Order: sequence, then structure tokens, then C-alpha cells
Amino acid sequence: MENPLEAFTLSAVNTCPSLGVGLAGFGTVGSGVWNTLDRNGALITGRTGGGVSLHIAKILVRDRSKTRATTGDVPAEIFTTDWRALIDDPAVEIVVELIGGTTDAFEIVAAALKAKKPVVTGNKALLAERGVELFALSKEHDTPIHFEAAVAGGIPIIRTVQDSFIGNRILAFSGIINGTSNYILGRMTDAGLTFADALTEAQSLGYAEADPALDVNGWDAAHKAILLATLAYGFPIHPKDIHVSGIEQVRPTDIHFAKSLGYVVKLLAVIREHPDGTVELRVQPSFIAKSNILASVHGVFNAVAVHGDTAGESLFYGRGAGQNPTASSVVADLVEAARSLKQSSGHRGFLPYREKGRILPAAETSTAYYVRFDVTDRPGVIAEVAKILADHKIGISGTHSPVNPSNPDAEFVDMIFLLHTCPFGKLQAALEEIEQLDCVNSIPVVFRIESLG
Amino acid sequence: MENPLEAFTLSAVNTCPSLGVGLAGFGTVGSGVWNTLDRNGALITGRTGGGVSLHIAKILVRDRSKTRATTGDVPAEIFTTDWRALIDDPAVEIVVELIGGTTDAFEIVAAALKAKKPVVTGNKALLAERGVELFALSKEHDTPIHFEAAVAGGIPIIRTVQDSFIGNRILAFSGIINGTSNYILGRMTDAGLTFADALTEAQSLGYAEADPALDVNGWDAAHKAILLATLAYGFPIHPKDIHVSGIEQVRPTDIHFAKSLGYVVKLLAVIREHPDGTVELRVQPSFIAKSNILASVHGVFNAVAVHGDTAGESLFYGRGAGQNPTASSVVADLVEAARSLKQSSGHRGFLPYREKGRILPAAETSTAYYVRFDVTDRPGVIAEVAKILADHKIGISGTHSPVNPSNPDAEFVDMIFLLHTCPFGKLQAALEEIEQLDCVNSIPVVFRIESLG
Repeated sequence: MENPLEAFTLSAVNTCPSLGVGLAGFGTVGSGVWNTLDRNGALITGRTGGGVSLHIAKILVRDRSKTRATTGDVPAEIFTTDWRALIDDPAVEIVVELIGGTTDAFEIVAAALKAKKPVVTGNKALLAERGVELFALSKEHDTPIHFEAAVAGGIPIIRTVQDSFIGNRILAFSGIINGTSNYILGRMTDAGLTFADALTEAQSLGYAEADPALDVNGWDAAHKAILLATLAYGFPIHPKDIHVSGIEQVRPTDIHFAKSLGYVVKLLAVIREHPDGTVELRVQPSFIAKSNILASVHGVFNAVAVHGDTAGESLFYGRGAGQNPTASSVVADLVEAARSLKQSSGHRGFLPYREKGRILPAAETSTAYYVRFDVTDRPGVIAEVAKILADHKIGISGTHSPVNPSNPDAEFVDMIFLLHTCPFGKLQAALEEIEQLDCVNSIPVVFRIESLG
Repeated sequence: MENPLEAFTLSAVNTCPSLGVGLAGFGTVGSGVWNTLDRNGALITGRTGGGVSLHIAKILVRDRSKTRATTGDVPAEIFTTDWRALIDDPAVEIVVELIGGTTDAFEIVAAALKAKKPVVTGNKALLAERGVELFALSKEHDTPIHFEAAVAGGIPIIRTVQDSFIGNRILAFSGIINGTSNYILGRMTDAGLTFADALTEAQSLGYAEADPALDVNGWDAAHKAILLATLAYGFPIHPKDIHVSGIEQVRPTDIHFAKSLGYVVKLLAVIREHPDGTVELRVQPSFIAKSNILASVHGVFNAVAVHGDTAGESLFYGRGAGQNPTASSVVADLVEAARSLKQSSGHRGFLPYREKGRILPAAETSTAYYVRFDVTDRPGVIAEVAKILADHKIGISGTHSPVNPSNPDAEFVDMIFLLHTCPFGKLQAALEEIEQLDCVNSIPVVFRIESLG
């Protein structure tokens, strides 16, 4: 195969000294970064007019003896098990944090910033939970933190919000930003699997981890939503600010019912700026119209719809995780970090630019709702529930009690109510009363019906 | 309404002197740029940590007396009718070219680069036809040309390819990048309109210009495809390199037939790098599977699917034209240009980085095909056509002769052949022979059947 890069103007390619990268962590994504630089390093140098050349100078690992699957040989002498040795090595000019977690990773990122070494990370939990401290260090030491890989893998949504939409007030995001949940909901929809069976299948295919908690309880998506909102609105947002629920409560009944009404169920991150500047922020299983483009996001793919006051509606779609997509974002950030090293001062990394902002309390967020009650099947049940809803002035757009075909005389049945738009707090107050009814056997399950764009 | 920006850390916001922008052209997009800076200027300054503040210092117009619809008053003294006065004004530090065309616009852009004033333009024809000269000037004078607004309006595809996918070899693009054509094909599909009626409707809604030639003949999309390919592959690509046809030949018969086979007809830009580095580049009406996400791109929206060797498959979707979406891209480029002014040397604008590359000749591009013949309806017609195709070793996957229900005894009918994948040159040779048959009354119409991703 002819190498199409041979036609480069090579005079330009040889002008820059190569920058040393320190990789903290050498698992799937770390190996992907190695492979990408190995394969496309010359292309990157060509595209930057010879301005950027990168090589991996040191790698932090837990176990030096472990075999790694990479293209090309990684020299044994660049491995270290001591993170301080990585940061302190003068050959390391940029630090990539890929070890995960919020303790050691915090120490490494903080130390790198203090040493004025730009940081690239894909660690959404770290930034969502300890971003305030880290961005303060970034500002103090005039050294950027780049985190494209932290949200939606290979989709360049961070740079899009930060740079391409810089002239936009961001009115809303709605995103499918957890591939595991999307895969599970997809299999429940297409193959009629239960949540448990779909999760087992996702695990066997490597789409869900052995401990899938953060994926299915919504917190992985919530961390990403916190980062998107922080970027868009510029003030620190804390995990306590976001209203989160996961997909564990979704049952085949819900999927079926959604379908019959022209909806699909998606784990949706919704971020919205209200006209008074208050920010609404939540991650929940939601009913969205089949005709919405987000309904076409299948499998482990991610997508983020952005509504800017200037650009209008856009959508960014791609692989939200995996070795190569994540490596693609890490490498783009490495180039950005390399460029920042050439500037005498001032970096282009994100820094919060507002001290505070208002987050809408969950009780004040309004949508329509789908509510599933587990009730004892006797005459009068619907009337009792409907009366309480009416007392709270919550409109009902439909109610349905699916008969269990395998057991038409079952004592306990699912009863479904579709409710008009009202504040979530109002619904909660009504549901607390409804839970007290004798005929209601467990805490009702609520999904939002979103009207997007 | 409370202004959420009041919570800014205003100390940072006041640190930079405002940069003067010279607008060459003050039509729809120019007014949109004015309005965006008027509305979101403080937000931009906040987001850049006080690093970038912009104001419009001078505006080139043809007629000073014309009334303009803008928010806020544009001071009369900043208008000029002399483009040299715009470039030479020391208050103008960045030049935005929005006058269109390839002659005066070329002079203005060239003069700005020579004066070391960064250029922002949305002029795809200028860059597709004269980019080689302008990028040479950009390099010589170390001054960038930014052109996000030139491809797909508010979709940040230029920056995505240039920066976010810098670590990717771009294997392919497939894009719907002409909103007018997409609107017309959509109305032909959904409402059964003829091409002529759909075009008239598009014109009455402002989606097509009085002279719609460049939109419907494919050249507007072709100019954009040339820019995408130049960015991705780094060598100069000329308009003669691209194989272009427009939507004028699409008839309701074709739309109907596509639908019955599970396809939709889209004007598609296809750019693909072959394993040997040869680049395939074409814009044509194409049949694409209904299940492909590009089939869900409706109305005047645009979308570009990108396949990177590292990021995998992505899609970028949004408004491809219009005052505000285009202004959003111009403003993002203005911020980029402002930042480049602070660097002592070296800019981040695009420069070709390969002297040459190989473009695949149209005759060597291979897909499956849909071919419509206008034939005299007599026994033996299918056999005659099929024999020539067989002589050329072109496989037939189906043939169909739709009966005209309003005139079942019509002498002239449409005959449709679906052909297996073969090089376009081979098909052309066969069609030249077929055209000689007595029963074939006009030049056959060919659409490609694309198998994407």
C-alpha cells in the first residue's frame, strides 16, 4: 500500500521538536492513544504544518509485568509504577490521566497543574465531583485541563460547545449519553427482553461492566450532564444539583405502552436554561416521540442535541465509548495542549466564568408524565386515584389497566396514568397521598414524557 | 428579565481591549453577525475569560442609504462603499468577507491577508475555485482564513475535521449539504410534487433563490464537498476533480420507485479515501436506505456523516443555511481569529499540507445503479437493453416498466433497470450503445444506489 503521506511537504514536518506525553493509566484507552499516535502521528504533524509532534515519554502502570496489546513495541524503560516519577520527569510535558476514580486521579491532575503541565483527561466523575478545585488550580497555574474524552467518547461535543457555539446562548441540550443504558433499552424494545436479561446480554458483549451500577442508575450520564451544563453556563455545578434516576425500574410493560402511544423510552439528559437564567438539569428515563431524531439513536451510540439561540437546532451523533473513539478525543486534546504550550500565557482550556447561577429545584421542573401503579384489581381503584389527582389539579390525559393475558384474574395489576404537564413537586405531593391508598401496593413508578424542540 | 450574565466575574471581563471587525457585506448574514455580537458579546467575553471582546468597526456596503434590520443602531459613520477603506482602516483588525462571488471577494480577501488581517468568510465558491491562491497568501503572510460558515451553515464541521478529528485518517464523508435540494426532494417524496412544483414552492418560502441553478445543479454542494475533501486530505482539489450532477432530472417516478424498494432519494456528497490514498469525490442524487440516519434528515436541514479510522462513525446535523446559523459560525471564527492575533507567530487556520494527491476518475467510481430509460413500448425492448448490459458484463438485479395508469396504451414508457455494482465507466460504455437502439428515445437517467457505512 502506497503511503499517501509521502506527498507531504516534508520540510515543514521536520521543524518542531517532539513533545513528551506522560500516560497515567495504560488500559484500553491508553493503548488506544499509543496506537493512534503510532498510526497517525505523521498525519498530525502534517496537519499542524509541522507545528505539533507527539511521543509517549512515560507510562504509569500498576503492574509492569502485564502484557499489553499495542501496535509497535512499547519500550520497557518508559513504564513506571510511581505517579510522582511520571509528573516529575522533565521529558513529560503533557499529562494524560486515564486511571479513573476521584482520589489518586485527583492527586495526579493537581500535581500536573502545579507543575504547569497541561492535563488531558476522560474522567467525568473526577471533574463532575472535584472540578471546582481542579479548575481553580488550572486558573492559578495558567495551565489547561482538556476533557473532550469525558463526555460522549468520540463525539466532539466539548469543543463544539466551548468554541464552535461560543456566540450562542445555549437554550437546551437533550442527550443520550450512556451507551449501556441505550443498548439495554433498545434490546427491551426490539427483542422484548426484560431489564435483567438485557443487562446480562450487554455484559456478555462487553457493553456493560461487571458492576453496571453507574451506567444503569443514571450517574454516568449525570456526570456528563454536569460537565455539559458547567461548560454551557460557566458556573460550578455540583452533583447534588442534578435530578437523577436510572433505567432499573423500566419494565416491558412500559416499553410496550410507550410504543403503542408513538414513543420510545430513552435515558435522557435534559439541560435547559429558563428565560430568567435558571438552569434545569436532570437525567431520567423518558418517553420521546418516535419521530424525534434522538429516537433513531440505537445500540451503544450516543447523541447530543443542542439548541443554541444563534445556531438553532443541531445534533451530534457517534460512538460514546470504546478504545478508539475515546482515544480520538484524547489525541485531539493532546494537540490542543501541545499548542497551548507554545503560547507565552493564557490558555484555551475551560475555566468557570461565573461565580454562581441558579439551578431549578427538581420540584419545579415540569413535563407530562407516565405513571405506573401496582394496584389491587377491584372496582373503584381508578376513581380513587383520579380523585386525588383532581384534588391536586393534575390533568389526566389517559388511563389504562393492561390485562395480564397469562392470568386475567390476577389480583395485582399495573395501572397506568398519563398526566398533563405539571411541576414535579405537585405530582410528588399527589403520589404521596396515592401511596396511602389501600389498593396501591408499592411506590408508583414515574417516567417523564418529553416534548423536545 | 434578570440577566444571568450579571453573575460574571467582571474583573476578568474588563481586561482586554476590544478588537475591531470589518464586515465586507451587510446582507442577511452580515446583519446576523451584528445582532449576535450585540446580543451575546458579553457572554463571549466572559467565556474567553475576558480574553476576547469584539466590535464592528467598519461595514462595506454598496448603497449607504439602504435601511437595515438590526438590533441596536448601526452608527452611520461606520459604513463605507470603498473596500480599500475597509481594509486600510487601522480600526479594522479582522476582515469578514460576506459579499459572495469570486472576483471582488478575491481582491478583498487577498488584500486583507497581505495586510496581515485574519479573514473570516462563508464564501464556498471563492475557496473551492481560488483556494489554492488564497491559502498560499495565508501561508506567506502568516495570517489565517477561517471558513466554518462556508460548509453547512451552523454545523461546526470544519472545526470538527480540522481539530477534533486531527488524530483520524478520514475514511469517508457522506453529506446532505444543500438544504434547497433536500427540501425539494422531501416535498417530492412526502407530497408527490413534481420537481418544478416543489422548486416553485421552495422559492415562495425563501428556501430557493430566484436563480436556483447552483443549488439544484449540485454545484453549491460540490463547492462544499471540495472544501471538506481539501481539509481532510490536505492537498489542493479543483472543481474539475469532482463528479457532479444535480436534482433536475429526478422525477416522481424515481421517488416512487425508490420508496417501493426501501430507499429515499437524497442529493448526496460522497468523499472517500481508498486504501491506496486515492480520493473519490462526487455529488449526485442517490438512493440511500430508509434505515440510514441520513434518510431522517428532512427539510432544509443538513447533515454530514464522517467515518474516521479512530473515532468511528459520527454524524453532525443542523441548519445548513440562514441568517443566524451562518452568523453563529462566523462569530466562532471571529473568536478564533481574535485569538490568533495574540500569538506572536503561527496560526491555526487551515493550510494545505500535501502538494498533491490522486483523485479517482469518475469512470473508476463504483456503486450499484438505478437507470431510467425512456423507451418505445414494444415487445423485445427489455431483451435488447439486457443483451447490451450482458455484453458489458453488467449484472441486472431487477427491471421494471411501470404502466402509466392514466394512459395504459402509451407509446413511450419509462423502463427501469437496477444494476449491480460496477465502475461508472463500464456503465457509461454500455449506455452509449443502448442510446443507439431505435427503441430508446433519450439519454438514460442514472442515479447511484449508495451502500453507506
